[in-house]
Amino acid sequence: MQLVEEILKGNIRALSKAISLVENRHHQSEDILSEIFPHTGKGYLIGVTGAPGSGKSSLVDRMIAYYRQEGKSVGVIAVDPSSPFSGGALLGDRIRMQEHSIDPGVFIRSMGSRGSLGGLSQAARDTARLMDAFGKDIIILETVGVGQSEVEVMNVAHTVLVVLTPNSGDTIQILKAGIMEIADLFVINKSDLDGAHKVKNEVEAYLKLKAAQGWQVPVFPVMSLTGEGVSALCEGIYLHRDYLYTKGVWEKKLGGRLRNEVVQITMEKVMSYVTSCLNDDDWKDLLSKMDRHQVSPYQVADKVAKILLGIS
Amino acid sequence: MQLVEEILKGNIRALSKAISLVENRHHQSEDILSEIFPHTGKGYLIGVTGAPGSGKSSLVDRMIAYYRQEGKSVGVIAVDPSSPFSGGALLGDRIRMQEHSIDPGVFIRSMGSRGSLGGLSQAARDTARLMDAFGKDIIILETVGVGQSEVEVMNVAHTVLVVLTPNSGDTIQILKAGIMEIADLFVINKSDLDGAHKVKNEVEAYLKLKAAQGWQVPVFPVMSLTGEGVSALCEGIYLHRDYLYTKGVWEKKLGGRLRNEVVQITMEKVMSYVTSCLNDDDWKDLLSKMDRHQVSPYQVADKVAKILLGIS
Repeated sequence: MQLVEEILKGNIRALSKAISLVENRHHQSEDILSEIFPHTGKGYLIGVTGAPGSGKSSLVDRMIAYYRQEGKSVGVIAVDPSSPFSGGALLGDRIRMQEHSIDPGVFIRSMGSRGSLGGLSQAARDTARLMDAFGKDIIILETVGVGQSEVEVMNVAHTVLVVLTPNSGDTIQILKAGIMEIADLFVINKSDLDGAHKVKNEVEAYLKLKAAQGWQVPVFPVMSLTGEGVSALCEGIYLHRDYLYTKGVWEKKLGGRLRNEVVQITMEKVMSYVTSCLNDDDWKDLLSKMDRHQVSPYQVADKVAKILLGIS
Repeated sequence: MQLVEEILKGNIRALSKAISLVENRHHQSEDILSEIFPHTGKGYLIGVTGAPGSGKSSLVDRMIAYYRQEGKSVGVIAVDPSSPFSGGALLGDRIRMQEHSIDPGVFIRSMGSRGSLGGLSQAARDTARLMDAFGKDIIILETVGVGQSEVEVMNVAHTVLVVLTPNSGDTIQILKAGIMEIADLFVINKSDLDGAHKVKNEVEAYLKLKAAQGWQVPVFPVMSLTGEGVSALCEGIYLHRDYLYTKGVWEKKLGGRLRNEVVQITMEKVMSYVTSCLNDDDWKDLLSKMDRHQVSPYQVADKVAKILLGIS
């Protein structure tokens, strides 16, 4: 496929086009993704999540500068499940990143919920793969808020950063949303503010309580406005990468994720089949019985599933 | 099944127990729901959604009082997707409802995301059915926040109220989340505050823009603290009910929802089958090729789906 060849050659317009096709679940998208798949696995995916206002965007900005100085090319996927928009960089906070947007080594793409049929996390995963195949060394997945969709998006990354700030009261919200559990590294942003020490202590108390085996989750105070602490953070990310790659942890994690993905994609395929099935005349009687509350949806589903699985 | 008999007899402990079984997807839950299904369809489901702080709980409180005065029995399902808890009434706002909790004609249940395997909206739907079969005339589904999960929960209701307040800036958030579109009635709470008129105008402008056929979405100013406007609101809900029931709108809506439900439940059944399938030795080679990035998850899923659908 010519589009794939162009992506592998580093044609940025081909990359943009492929992302749009994939987001819109164009009929060619599966072929594109399958052709590209053998060329993926080289890029490193960093997830950045935290409450709105925690300064994630300026942190990402600083991280981009760090990696660019190292000579690495960077891709950014900004995910906002509450936004109906997708495509170019559009969110207010993104404006700061524009400084990098004229740098050909940085590719930024934002993604909203409605633009991506088949789920935002699948769209984010596939976009990351396209950037990976294109040659991006570092791919940053940034989410706007903290919700279930964001947790799923983070499930694509190698390393997940959870950003907290002093005195924001976010900690409880983040704890509730299950975000604490997915952190590979904690970042205390705006660490010059009063209360930074308190948040750090809270997080460390939480981590002690968890008493995880293997990787010990570190906490990094940073000031994204000045850039203080960002180098140490990026070095911390490399340590986590080394941990993943040397202990065989990544192979196991990736294997599990790929299997889940197979299940999800299969389900999508089966679902459209089942939906169209129910329109067949054979089902008319049973469905009208359901409408009259004589048969429950569970009983109908049982019948459909049995036929599908060849148990009938 | 004895539990079902007890529910139909009005045994409140049996109802509580059944809700827990259903929430936890106990192996008996499908049988319970199928047995109960022919006894459902009498209760009226009212969804109440809006941003946190819009006074939904005190509004629900006032609505309960209205329906109790009419001699109707009331069930309340308080849904908080961001909370890991479920079971009793636990949220801060719920405390106010406690005044009704000693009234045997009112049954309150709260529901968090983690307590409900298989999706919060399915759990809410099934809980509403149990309350319906138990004999509740009015079932109020209240959500805490405004997100995608909340929209799905609202999809269970006959009538959806979207609660707005003056000067809160929620309108944009609610618009973004697609909540405006699901409103059958708008409620402007705290209507004594400055800016109430402005919100009302905004909503009416939005409604004019939409120019819907059929039901004309009305806007009700209320003051849930004093109860002003609540009677008019509840009469408005009855008008919507009459609209649904006399024009055959409800049959069509319900039919579509039941079919969707069949698809969802079927998917759940097929999914566990596919997941276990992948553990078979037959798949070992293909999956390890996928792990080595030689075959894409899309290609594997295609193979699984084809076998499942008998196309291979």
